[in-house]
Order: sequence, then structure tokens, then C-alpha cells
Amino acid sequence: MRSSSGEMTRPVSPDQTYNADYDYKKIFIEELRPKVIVLRLGHRAERDKRITTHVALVARAFGARGIIIVGDKDPMIRSSLEKVLNKWGGKEYFEFKEEDDYKKVLREWKKDEKRCVAHLTMYGIPVDRIISEIRERCEELIVIVGAEKVPREIFELADYNVSITSQPHSEVSALAVFLDRLYEGRELYLYFRDAELRIIPDHKRKIVLKGKNINI
Amino acid sequence: MRSSSGEMTRPVSPDQTYNADYDYKKIFIEELRPKVIVLRLGHRAERDKRITTHVALVARAFGARGIIIVGDKDPMIRSSLEKVLNKWGGKEYFEFKEEDDYKKVLREWKKDEKRCVAHLTMYGIPVDRIISEIRERCEELIVIVGAEKVPREIFELADYNVSITSQPHSEVSALAVFLDRLYEGRELYLYFRDAELRIIPDHKRKIVLKGKNINI
Repeated sequence: MRSSSGEMTRPVSPDQTYNADYDYKKIFIEELRPKVIVLRLGHRAERDKRITTHVALVARAFGARGIIIVGDKDPMIRSSLEKVLNKWGGKEYFEFKEEDDYKKVLREWKKDEKRCVAHLTMYGIPVDRIISEIRERCEELIVIVGAEKVPREIFELADYNVSITSQPHSEVSALAVFLDRLYEGRELYLYFRDAELRIIPDHKRKIVLKGKNINI
Repeated sequence: MRSSSGEMTRPVSPDQTYNADYDYKKIFIEELRPKVIVLRLGHRAERDKRITTHVALVARAFGARGIIIVGDKDPMIRSSLEKVLNKWGGKEYFEFKEEDDYKKVLREWKKDEKRCVAHLTMYGIPVDRIISEIRERCEELIVIVGAEKVPREIFELADYNVSITSQPHSEVSALAVFLDRLYEGRELYLYFRDAELRIIPDHKRKIVLKGKNINI
């Protein structure tokens, strides 16, 4: 690990076009605990293609270690995600799987006591009331996000049914806010070591560093 | 207003099926400042139908006062949103508009100095660095979320180009996290006075109150 939590470093850009006043904070994936795998249930290839892709991108960007998709097989999701992993980083650790049987996945997972299952649902307990217990108790966590109808059984299988508001919105936003609470906002600074594209934040311009040696 | 910010009240449910230990925190829409209108750019009816619907649902659930959609006309978005407003509340104040010309919308908006424009983009300044300035300076705020390609000009027209991570993910998650930072997590307790459905959060069960008099 090349940085301790919260270390601030200044970017060094080859062409000096970046905003030199900008402090670049870095968090590495190892610093985000518990480890999370997202389980996307009930994916329907036609209807959910873009939503499931967005769920996968949120999983990666907000510090999860992988995603398992249960439902229709859909090579488009994998290829969209792989493009992002190759360009923006994460392929060293981020796992993509498709499975047929979520019960088998959860049964295997729960053999280890330090592993938990959280299910995001508008019917569950507000995230702020339960997140510190999840953070303390669980070493590894599956986070279930469903498509429209989730089998009743999931409410029983989950250790935690968690709501991000009790209002209808989106599994994409629910997952992002859940991971943001779990990692206490630190995931916003997640640094992908193997990125071939890296943005230098700027007020007005699009500044992107490209190539194999763009460590800042 | 029937509650001051953060007041805790216990739910009284007609059938006593709710979790009686549960404290029900309420925030009313008037308590969320600055007022936000979401501007969704470049909506394409076929490709973006579900994503734009999710953007609209996040806008409502996370405390915005309305959404303006620029792009293809799409009656599906309006009807999905109206169903949610009727059942879950918000129709008293939440506005839905479709416009052809975003420049006109922004020109009108910016006639008033206390109104600002924030554009969510992975190239912008990290939200944590800029959100308190936005909260203090702006009485009303348009938040722009684009589809894949946003005209270059938007970066110039925006007072703030704001990133929710410098990674690719989703306009749905970006909007949710932006509003969550803007309202400092209070929007998660937004209470819709005119709701005909209301959830009592529970560990395992789906508990929904239905009808015209479900104030808790």
C-alpha cells in the first residue's frame, strides 16, 4: 500500500495543465472494509440492461470488490464492465460472475460466520440506524439489490434488510448511498492503481491523463 | 409545518403491526434548502427511458422540487412519475416539465443572482470540496445531469462543475449522492404529507399503511 488513509498529495502532471492548487486525496481498495460483493437479482436482459450496467459501475466506483448477476445471461453487461475495468482500473481485483441460483450463492456465503448479507429494500430499517452494526460485525458482506420483484424469501435470508429512504427510487442510487454510508464517504477518493485514464478534477475543463504511467 | 427539524415521534399504526420500538424521524420539504430543480439533458426515448425515470424518482425521493427533461418527448416518464406522486406523495409541489431548449431554461434561471447552476460531471471538482459553498451561496439551484454526451457549453454555463468521484458510474447515483451531501443526509427522512402509502420500516416484514389518513 502506497498511502495511508487520507494522505493528501499534489498531482504531478506531465504537461502542467492541471489545476496545481488541487490536493489529490487517495484511498486504496484495501482500506475499504468490510469487503463487499454486490448481488444483483432478477436481471432481465431486455428491460434491465442499462440499469444493471449502472449497478455494476456503481459497485466498482464505490468500492465493492465484485458483482454477481442472477437472472438472464447477458454478455453486454460483462463487456461494458470490462471496458471500464481496462480503461479506468480495477481489473486486478474486481470480479464479475453470472449465477443461476441465488440460494446456492447465499448458502455457500453464509457458511462463514463473519460473512453477512444485507438486502437493500424500501421496507427495511433506515441505513443510518443499522450501518455501524454492519460495519463492526461483518468482515465480508453481500449486498443484494433486486429488480422490481424480489422473492419473499430474500427478506428471511438477509441478515439485514436496509432502506435508503422508505420511498421508491432506484437500485442504482440505493447501492451508492449504502456504500457511501458503509465507507463513510472515503470511497469517493478510491484510487485505481492500474488505471490507464485518470481525471484531474477541474472547475471548467476536461483534464484526462492517459497511458501506463499516470500515477499522481 | 407540523414538525421542526429532526423531531422524533413514535408511529401510531391502526393495527399495531409495526415495530413499536421504531422512532420515526420526519423532515418536511420546506426544511430542505436550497431548493433544487433537476435538469435532465439529452433524454433519448428508447435508450434512456428507465434511466431517466430513475433520475426523476431520485429527484423526488431525495428532496428536489421538480425535474425538467430536455430531449425526446416521452409520455412514459410523466406517467411513471405521476403514479408515484399520487401514491407516495409529492404532487402538491413536485413539478414535471419537458422543454426543447436548455439554453432558454438556463438563461431565464440565471436572471436572478441567488440562483445557481451545478452540473454533475466526473471531470468536475469533488463534491466535498465545493458543497458548503453551494449551500451557502445559492437559494435555488438547478442540478444538471446529462445522458452520455453533454454539450461542451454546459461546462461554461454551469457555476459549478461537480464530481461524485472522478470515475464513470451513473447519473442516478451521482444525483443521489449530490443531494445527500447538499442536504447533509436529512433528505433520507423526507416526509410526504399527501402520501396514500406509507412504509413502517421493519427488520423482516413489508409493512405498508394505506389510505387518506395515514399520518404517523
